[in-house]
Amino acid sequence: MVRVTVWGENVHDRRDAHVRAVYPETMHECIAGALREDAGLKVRTATLDQAEHGLSESVLAETDVLTWWGHAAHDQVQDAVVERVQKRVLEGMGLIVLHSGHYSKIFKRLMGTSCSLTWREADELERVWLCDPGHPIARGLPRYFEIEKSEMYGEPFGIPPPDEQVFLSWFQGGEVFRSGCTWRRGNGRVFYFSPGHEAYPIFRDQHVRQVLRNAANWAHTPTTVKDACPMITLEETPEREALPRAAAPHARR
Amino acid sequence: MVRVTVWGENVHDRRDAHVRAVYPETMHECIAGALREDAGLKVRTATLDQAEHGLSESVLAETDVLTWWGHAAHDQVQDAVVERVQKRVLEGMGLIVLHSGHYSKIFKRLMGTSCSLTWREADELERVWLCDPGHPIARGLPRYFEIEKSEMYGEPFGIPPPDEQVFLSWFQGGEVFRSGCTWRRGNGRVFYFSPGHEAYPIFRDQHVRQVLRNAANWAHTPTTVKDACPMITLEETPEREALPRAAAPHARR
Amino acid sequence: MVRVTVWGENVHDRRDAHVRAVYPETMHECIAGALREDAGLKVRTATLDQAEHGLSESVLAETDVLTWWGHAAHDQVQDAVVERVQKRVLEGMGLIVLHSGHYSKIFKRLMGTSCSLTWREADELERVWLCDPGHPIARGLPRYFEIEKSEMYGEPFGIPPPDEQVFLSWFQGGEVFRSGCTWRRGNGRVFYFSPGHEAYPIFRDQHVRQVLRNAANWAHTPTTVKDACPMITLEETPEREALPRAAAPHARR
Amino acid sequence: MVRVTVWGENVHDRRDAHVRAVYPETMHECIAGALREDAGLKVRTATLDQAEHGLSESVLAETDVLTWWGHAAHDQVQDAVVERVQKRVLEGMGLIVLHSGHYSKIFKRLMGTSCSLTWREADELERVWLCDPGHPIARGLPRYFEIEKSEMYGEPFGIPPPDEQVFLSWFQGGEVFRSGCTWRRGNGRVFYFSPGHEAYPIFRDQHVRQVLRNAANWAHTPTTVKDACPMITLEETPEREALPRAAAPHARR
Repeated sequence: MVRVTVWGENVHDRRDAHVRAVYPETMHECIAGALREDAGLKVRTATLDQAEHGLSESVLAETDVLTWWGHAAHDQVQDAVVERVQKRVLEGMGLIVLHSGHYSKIFKRLMGTSCSLTWREADELERVWLCDPGHPIARGLPRYFEIEKSEMYGEPFGIPPPDEQVFLSWFQGGEVFRSGCTWRRGNGRVFYFSPGHEAYPIFRDQHVRQVLRNAANWAHTPTTVKDACPMITLEETPEREALPRAAAPHARR
Repeated sequence: MVRVTVWGENVHDRRDAHVRAVYPETMHECIAGALREDAGLKVRTATLDQAEHGLSESVLAETDVLTWWGHAAHDQVQDAVVERVQKRVLEGMGLIVLHSGHYSKIFKRLMGTSCSLTWREADELERVWLCDPGHPIARGLPRYFEIEKSEMYGEPFGIPPPDEQVFLSWFQGGEVFRSGCTWRRGNGRVFYFSPGHEAYPIFRDQHVRQVLRNAANWAHTPTTVKDACPMITLEETPEREALPRAAAPHARR
Repeated sequence: MVRVTVWGENVHDRRDAHVRAVYPETMHECIAGALREDAGLKVRTATLDQAEHGLSESVLAETDVLTWWGHAAHDQVQDAVVERVQKRVLEGMGLIVLHSGHYSKIFKRLMGTSCSLTWREADELERVWLCDPGHPIARGLPRYFEIEKSEMYGEPFGIPPPDEQVFLSWFQGGEVFRSGCTWRRGNGRVFYFSPGHEAYPIFRDQHVRQVLRNAANWAHTPTTVKDACPMITLEETPEREALPRAAAPHARR
Repeated sequence: MVRVTVWGENVHDRRDAHVRAVYPETMHECIAGALREDAGLKVRTATLDQAEHGLSESVLAETDVLTWWGHAAHDQVQDAVVERVQKRVLEGMGLIVLHSGHYSKIFKRLMGTSCSLTWREADELERVWLCDPGHPIARGLPRYFEIEKSEMYGEPFGIPPPDEQVFLSWFQGGEVFRSGCTWRRGNGRVFYFSPGHEAYPIFRDQHVRQVLRNAANWAHTPTTVKDACPMITLEETPEREALPRAAAPHARR
């Protein structure tokens, strides 16, 4: 059983009538619903407006994979929570970053780069191509699928080279984008997937929902590795007789 | 001419008698001296105690490559300066992170990972092996070189997979370490080099000085790319006639 | 159930008295025995002296993971069999290359590089360090383990940058080596592990046997993707109305 | 001065009237002409029909960067020449593989993968996007450029993950492709660039010609590293006193 926490910013969902019309149940509930179609996933949600944004130490400790959708309020996410999420990713928690989450604090922090891109809202067609048809995240998908109305996200995308290029997107207006990318950071697996604009019912699309389920299963790693920067004592030193002198620790770190 | 700024924390250099004995001219001046042996490098220094840590917008704008040594006062480096340095790296400035700089804010921010390692101070031998003898940073070096007394830095090292593994180190006490690693982040080249403990005259070593000069030349890229996350207007859209409707920008970002 | 085929060159095992003394059951049977301790692995062996080296189309079709040990007779492996193995790796079969297999035709073909290294036989200690303690191949292992007598393999190792650095080795004689590396090639996972000289009972070592079992489980991917380089017909073209003319295939490939 | 050898298959150029109409001077001469516009490049050509395909040991020894265009006669390239070219790339020679060269022996050998793709000839528009505007190969180019009539090359492209993604292409018929990719193999830099179908005057396009010149300059590395797999003698062993016994070489390799 993979324990997934779906994080939603929950701002557009409440504030904007046109988004409420598309996602009356909220975006995070729609995403959670897609994941719940997989009996192997145990899903809960968390939102910005909750205490600690719903991401307390105990919630994260019980989370194998976290999904992240944010857009209008990236700067309202507390740094302490971002740090906590990063720490859990480095320990081994999976992270799935969706659409405008490219500019979230947590994604930028894990990538170390600008995470910039180009964009346009024009109700245009996005065609998502599989570059890596054998990848677990591509399981069960056709060689491409289409999203009738999407926001364009285009290159250059300011990311480090992905470990794996799972999807590339074609846009009606003439652009291309690296729409599905994976990285490993510390012991955690990170997947970025660009479709998911709030004004369109993209998270109701069957292929997108399949991607979400595939990604949740892929991102889960059974291991948790706690960070440390330990001094190695004389007793722990493999070749202790070879040392010129006993290790002389001084207060540090 | 490559313009290099050597940043020194300058704490041990002033505070600790045993470090002053090794580096009476300060560590950053010793490093700057190594670089000045290359007539193609134009070198200046900057330190923590200066205004804006000596890294004002104008200094960074005139810096092609920045070297970073810090240890005792990582947390005293202002976040605004870290952000500024990161921005310049992503634009194309080279960054050379030395020794305990693995735990600096700037290195952790660019890597996105813990940057942890294991360590021991025991006056032990470090032998630095070339994994990539054809790499520009390895130019002119023998197949290995030795540092008679060094601090041990050992695996696991909490970094993303390096683009290139230039050096690996062997330690007398029995450990190994990825002591020379490169990454590209945005448009900037990053090199981490682990030898350089403050209590030993490592920056007087001829091989280490050669590494510094090689790395400064390698890290320089002639290009500067300014970050942006632009909306693509109808006029800028390649296939504008194909769009279902004119791009409808709304206030964002 | 993961179906593993253990390929052994079976030359030293029969020809050399000192190897027979160490591995009276042959090296491949020893390796197979290590794998059979995992009830989830279904293991068979194949050797150079068999028809098609024991690697017929049907054997490979029923193989999820192949392990490869060779040394004295790399050049006797038929190119047709090498091509067949490569094809299966690209389709999704896992491959574990052991020790002197670094110079096998199949490993060099998948890497595209020289795969050279330095070496010495002197009964020396090898200490294998975990660089990536959360990796599935490192599961259940201590932070390092020792092989009392080993052949030294040293840097530079002529490989493309590994996707993941699982192990690094320290040698008594003063060298270091990237002793555990992973790559993905096509849809298959490749793991290279350097310990395993024929003159020492390394495949009887409990830690090494754990590595073999971990690697076999890790290398298995459920997917098989068949290679093709298809022409896209007009009917298969997503934007067929947009094409200036019907696709005009000519005989090719 | 960078010494470039332009290799042309020279089959379509002589055999096919429609190709002769586009490239009366041959394709390789057209490519050579683009490179000769850069005074820092010293350019010669070599073709399949010459002795040793024009790629003798001495020609390669005097070649810093080789460009490769082939299509109809990949299988006529002698394995000995392929091996020789690969050896030079691993030593440090740059290699630029163009268009249908994706299926050449030398590219497949260096990649180790299938190098397959999808394709269609329909006189369609290709729009080449810069993913990495600060990359030396992108120097002087606009954020995208268009090739009015091109052969479609589409995903999935059977390559190892590129070190750098310089270009991505959009096609009128609806596909996308990783049209500009770099890798380092051994000490050599490899660039694959997909535009360049023989039936269209693509190598007369000013942007494509700029890419060729940029790539030739980028691919040149001043170093040559000769491959070896040396035994380390007792005298060469850093910690020779630590060895249990003197290294005991036996005939190998």
